[in-house]
Amino acid sequence: MIHIYTGNGKGKTTAAIGLAVRAAGSGMKVFFGQFVKGMAYNEVSIFNEQMPQIDHELFGRTCFINRDPEPEDYKAAKAGLRKVKNIIQSGQYSLIVLDELNIALYYKLIALEDILKLINELPRDLELVITGRYAPQELIDKADLVTEMKEVKHYYKQDIKARKGIEF
Amino acid sequence: MIHIYTGNGKGKTTAAIGLAVRAAGSGMKVFFGQFVKGMAYNEVSIFNEQMPQIDHELFGRTCFINRDPEPEDYKAAKAGLRKVKNIIQSGQYSLIVLDELNIALYYKLIALEDILKLINELPRDLELVITGRYAPQELIDKADLVTEMKEVKHYYKQDIKARKGIEF
Repeated sequence: MIHIYTGNGKGKTTAAIGLAVRAAGSGMKVFFGQFVKGMAYNEVSIFNEQMPQIDHELFGRTCFINRDPEPEDYKAAKAGLRKVKNIIQSGQYSLIVLDELNIALYYKLIALEDILKLINELPRDLELVITGRYAPQELIDKADLVTEMKEVKHYYKQDIKARKGIEF
Repeated sequence: MIHIYTGNGKGKTTAAIGLAVRAAGSGMKVFFGQFVKGMAYNEVSIFNEQMPQIDHELFGRTCFINRDPEPEDYKAAKAGLRKVKNIIQSGQYSLIVLDELNIALYYKLIALEDILKLINELPRDLELVITGRYAPQELIDKADLVTEMKEVKHYYKQDIKARKGIEF
């Protein structure tokens, strides 16, 4: 099954974390890969310290909200994709999360064709979760479940910055 | 801050689980209360076994998708609300999740006025997360952050039932 969590609202990565925890709680082995992100967030420290069923890896450097992607960003994303292929082939995981993959696609760090190919070759019993704004229509067409997280209201507009433990 | 995760799409409770884990990962003490639900889901077993920073409690009996609420459902929800007030007053928690509270409000297991009063008296530094379909407009007005999880596509429509580790 392929899940996509997209849209401009808060809750996409957070839902993927929740899914990872729920799956781990039922005994499933989970891989949680994060594209674009290069910083260890708090969700990660708890994975590493308290949830050995969830393997985690970062496939990015830093978030490039205020800059264009650099060659190193492309390299990091491509290395991430290679790693994901190995992870899938290993047959060890029941749930694989590719956090912010949509953003990596949006900035063309990764070619959409490569992801469509990967999805076409996916073992039938694997659960793949893809998050990030701007999910391309071709991916939506392939997915079994798509939720759009729609921002109705956000406290960023009250000028409140991202806070430790809540946003990261 | 008050967060609401509502809408008809998958990811509301899941995002609340993710938030709880992220907050716990940053050292915050978390209370996770679930209205309407009376069955221990897989997210819960992992809380109990691997995350002592997250206290969890069920405030429901069973899901009443195919029946009307019974007197016992009202009792369970009201007992839950009393517990939540104590939890808030204890001052021990930084993040409190009230999962499916919107459903409890929708079925009038709990009066909206009671929740609005609770919110008005909330300590300023407490993070309150409310989930469930049908968030009432009065709650949305009070909230600092609202995300609508909108179903774009769901595999239930392929006649696939809820699966252990993924939906519960």
